[in-house]
Amino acid sequence: MAGPISRVKDGPPWRGKLYDILFETDTNGYAKAFDILLIVAILTSVVVVMLDSVESIAEDRHGLLYGAEWFFTVLFTLEYAGRLASVESKRRYALSFFGIIDLLAIVPTYLSLLAPGTQSLAIIRILRVLRVFRVLKLVRYLGEARMLGRAMAASRYRIIVFLITVVTLVVILGSIMYLIEGEVEGTDFTSIPVTVYWAVVTLTTVGFGDITPQTTVGQFLAAIIMLMGYGMIAVPTGIVSVELAYAAHAARRTGDPSASHQNDMVCSACRAPGHDEDARFCKTCGGTVVAIRLE
Amino acid sequence: MAGPISRVKDGPPWRGKLYDILFETDTNGYAKAFDILLIVAILTSVVVVMLDSVESIAEDRHGLLYGAEWFFTVLFTLEYAGRLASVESKRRYALSFFGIIDLLAIVPTYLSLLAPGTQSLAIIRILRVLRVFRVLKLVRYLGEARMLGRAMAASRYRIIVFLITVVTLVVILGSIMYLIEGEVEGTDFTSIPVTVYWAVVTLTTVGFGDITPQTTVGQFLAAIIMLMGYGMIAVPTGIVSVELAYAAHAARRTGDPSASHQNDMVCSACRAPGHDEDARFCKTCGGTVVAIRLE
Amino acid sequence: MAGPISRVKDGPPWRGKLYDILFETDTNGYAKAFDILLIVAILTSVVVVMLDSVESIAEDRHGLLYGAEWFFTVLFTLEYAGRLASVESKRRYALSFFGIIDLLAIVPTYLSLLAPGTQSLAIIRILRVLRVFRVLKLVRYLGEARMLGRAMAASRYRIIVFLITVVTLVVILGSIMYLIEGEVEGTDFTSIPVTVYWAVVTLTTVGFGDITPQTTVGQFLAAIIMLMGYGMIAVPTGIVSVELAYAAHAARRTGDPSASHQNDMVCSACRAPGHDEDARFCKTCGGTVVAIRLE
Amino acid sequence: MAGPISRVKDGPPWRGKLYDILFETDTNGYAKAFDILLIVAILTSVVVVMLDSVESIAEDRHGLLYGAEWFFTVLFTLEYAGRLASVESKRRYALSFFGIIDLLAIVPTYLSLLAPGTQSLAIIRILRVLRVFRVLKLVRYLGEARMLGRAMAASRYRIIVFLITVVTLVVILGSIMYLIEGEVEGTDFTSIPVTVYWAVVTLTTVGFGDITPQTTVGQFLAAIIMLMGYGMIAVPTGIVSVELAYAAHAARRTGDPSASHQNDMVCSACRAPGHDEDARFCKTCGGTVVAIRLE
Repeated sequence: MAGPISRVKDGPPWRGKLYDILFETDTNGYAKAFDILLIVAILTSVVVVMLDSVESIAEDRHGLLYGAEWFFTVLFTLEYAGRLASVESKRRYALSFFGIIDLLAIVPTYLSLLAPGTQSLAIIRILRVLRVFRVLKLVRYLGEARMLGRAMAASRYRIIVFLITVVTLVVILGSIMYLIEGEVEGTDFTSIPVTVYWAVVTLTTVGFGDITPQTTVGQFLAAIIMLMGYGMIAVPTGIVSVELAYAAHAARRTGDPSASHQNDMVCSACRAPGHDEDARFCKTCGGTVVAIRLE
Repeated sequence: MAGPISRVKDGPPWRGKLYDILFETDTNGYAKAFDILLIVAILTSVVVVMLDSVESIAEDRHGLLYGAEWFFTVLFTLEYAGRLASVESKRRYALSFFGIIDLLAIVPTYLSLLAPGTQSLAIIRILRVLRVFRVLKLVRYLGEARMLGRAMAASRYRIIVFLITVVTLVVILGSIMYLIEGEVEGTDFTSIPVTVYWAVVTLTTVGFGDITPQTTVGQFLAAIIMLMGYGMIAVPTGIVSVELAYAAHAARRTGDPSASHQNDMVCSACRAPGHDEDARFCKTCGGTVVAIRLE
Repeated sequence: MAGPISRVKDGPPWRGKLYDILFETDTNGYAKAFDILLIVAILTSVVVVMLDSVESIAEDRHGLLYGAEWFFTVLFTLEYAGRLASVESKRRYALSFFGIIDLLAIVPTYLSLLAPGTQSLAIIRILRVLRVFRVLKLVRYLGEARMLGRAMAASRYRIIVFLITVVTLVVILGSIMYLIEGEVEGTDFTSIPVTVYWAVVTLTTVGFGDITPQTTVGQFLAAIIMLMGYGMIAVPTGIVSVELAYAAHAARRTGDPSASHQNDMVCSACRAPGHDEDARFCKTCGGTVVAIRLE
Repeated sequence: MAGPISRVKDGPPWRGKLYDILFETDTNGYAKAFDILLIVAILTSVVVVMLDSVESIAEDRHGLLYGAEWFFTVLFTLEYAGRLASVESKRRYALSFFGIIDLLAIVPTYLSLLAPGTQSLAIIRILRVLRVFRVLKLVRYLGEARMLGRAMAASRYRIIVFLITVVTLVVILGSIMYLIEGEVEGTDFTSIPVTVYWAVVTLTTVGFGDITPQTTVGQFLAAIIMLMGYGMIAVPTGIVSVELAYAAHAARRTGDPSASHQNDMVCSACRAPGHDEDARFCKTCGGTVVAIRLE
């Protein structure tokens, strides 16, 4: 949001070294080892927060979990301080996506000293796991994620129209259902908000079954809602399929490294791309096709 | 259904001004402010109707909700009267989609004086929220909605064939299930209509669980119904995907502003866009087609 | 299965007239009226069978339902006899799809005299409703149904491979689940067949909830099965989408009347088809594009 | 993993004959008969293991099931020994996919002598059923399976990105839900792991209903999770659809026998098929491409 994060320029040399370890991945063995240890620490600390919420475990191993929780919090605090110290612009890092996540990962534990019960919020540190993409240098994965994101972004208008339609439908169908089932003895449909919740559960084909229609008319309307939901799921699926097809096609044409269907066959005469892997002559001008490096 | 709605032509000038405020969106600041206030009023009144159905809230805040309900009803009545007064043809507005919705939004509250309990019908005013598209001038959204609508319309024959197949299947499978499970002690499958309802619940993968097979044969048939439903969901999805792909392609060709996939093939003679990727001659003037950068 | 059904050639003229009424739809007003009455009779008789299974209705209106059931059975028996009498080859009609359905629609009621309880089987007459396609001359619908059928047939190998994979997966996952949950006190997973049934319920995302895992390990495995089912639904969907896209494309190219995306733009110089609706010049040779009738 | 399995080269001639029966399918009638008997034996033995877990059956027919189980185990042991004896490299067969499955199919029954209860593991022999592909010489099915596998492999990066996103989402949403519902009297959301399990059940639209939100805020968040799951199912579906479309296209080009969509573009000089629809020159010899009828 404010340019790339870069290495501190002034100050003692240890801050540059710290930057290498914390932010780089392949400069030396320490950075690599640190990254892998960090991922392990993040995953372990998430498991600790989860186990701490299980009553039977929390009672038996309270000391252990409490200690582990503070151990990881102090560790992540030191890491956060180190990152702040070793970047050129502290503000830029603090306001970056990972900067905010890194802060949110340690705040809940400190907060729990003031307001007990908030340590569950520390689960937010699961988001730090997304660093795994950088650590394992999974550029390819990021390329694919970008492509999925682009396809989503391109179809956002259609998806919003679809969601507004679904929400309007669910409010209306829920209200009709309330009129049908609301007066029945021992009904589950006690109010319109509850019935709208039920309509969402039914239309999305989740079907918890905690609320079910009792009357024949109610079951008939429920069956229609289910068939609508069963058919309407085709709409977001169709939208995303079409966008993904375009994204894949565009990536292939523009030589985007995230395209997995890109080949390097180009005509030596007319330079036209897009030939098959096994082509020897240009399908447009009849010239010879050669393989070139696109990157 | 009877031509566009237009401003009243005769009468005092305040009726023309009223038209501007109620029907236009960008003529002056008043119209814009009115539109935003209207959307807020619609959403608030829908929340009031929903909360009124929650027993615990309705008892505590009965006076407040009752007052709010009548406040919004009177407000919407005045608005409806104003719209009627300021249009050229009252009949044309009254029979238009929004004219009917505007009327239905106020009728239930008046009806509840005669027949208590009908005020829940006022939830129909959620449909007035669709005005949001006009207010926010979301032409782009309307274009996308039209495209989704076109794709749906183009595939209506296939979807009807699919639905007839599903209904026939569900009646037959439900009846077979009734023969298998209907005689079991304490069965949930008490009649064929109930069993057909269960078959819809199962085939659409909703699965409430209020009715479940007890016998091994019943569970075997249920498993087959589930696998059918799991596989058959592919049919509407495939139909809509293909139609959306065609609609997107058609939109690209015709230069529809709702098409996000415009290519860069332009005629070098007449500058007409919208040619196929493989076109060599302009389909409009016969000139040579070249690829240019559109951005 | 044995050539088309045709009008009786010899015999008195009333048999030819009977054929016209029973098998034709547009020769005269009687045939049309008969067809519509037939569809109404079929639907009514299906409703009678369904209502007869509802205990509260069956007790109150037993005489009415019993009478209606026999009325329709005698009616359909007379119709079946008439059809047999008026066709050239009785064997050909009796072995045709509709011939078998017509017979199955009347047999259960007679059988119920010998074996009470079998009248529920009369629900099979719902299949006679498929005649509606012929009655309403919905050739277009039949074309679409054929296209869906072709797409299904073309992907049958892939769908069978997918189903074998799903069944194998479900047996293995169900057995592992039985090992995990089978020994727990008060478990729902009482045997491998029940657990395999649960695995189908879970993998297809139906989720009745009559059988649910209690242990943490069981819930973890259940979560993995759900994610598999959530992702695997993409496979049949993708298969059918691709096949439908090909079927639509092929229909367009071959001028099949069931193709809705067929246009009639052909180049007058090189006869190349496949131009846009708004094309005036051939995109390949630059010649003039004209609209011709393809049928 | 270590080259193809081949017939033993030395030793007495009965080992070569044994190889023909056990590994070949069409050399003589014995091999064919053996293969069919083997499939029947595998399916029967799987049914025996399943029935053995049903308490009511196991008690009544314990002797029969116990005998059948040992009969099949001895049979499969002899078969395994025969396969080992008749192959050139015992190690190669023992480490092949079917070699491992063949061993795992017999081990559990022997293990049950030492550790009772492990005979349920014998269900693993269901995997031996995959031999059915070879027995029925369903090369076509294998081609389709390979194509599905290729499409899956090509989209693995996108699917992994999608799964990491889903898991992260489910952990975060589960934890928020725990904060909302965890303190309610008589809640089902007793710990974060249980709530994350519920989030998977809800996001994948399975919806068991064993755990359901009670508070209005919880139901609101649950509705949002359901809508996300309902929309997100489009992502894997879109990914697989696009990949299958590419795989089908690629198969068409390379003349793969599993491709059912061969087009009719053939070179007029060298008769090579598999050109694009828009190709004008042969990609292999540079000759002119023409469209011919393939059937």
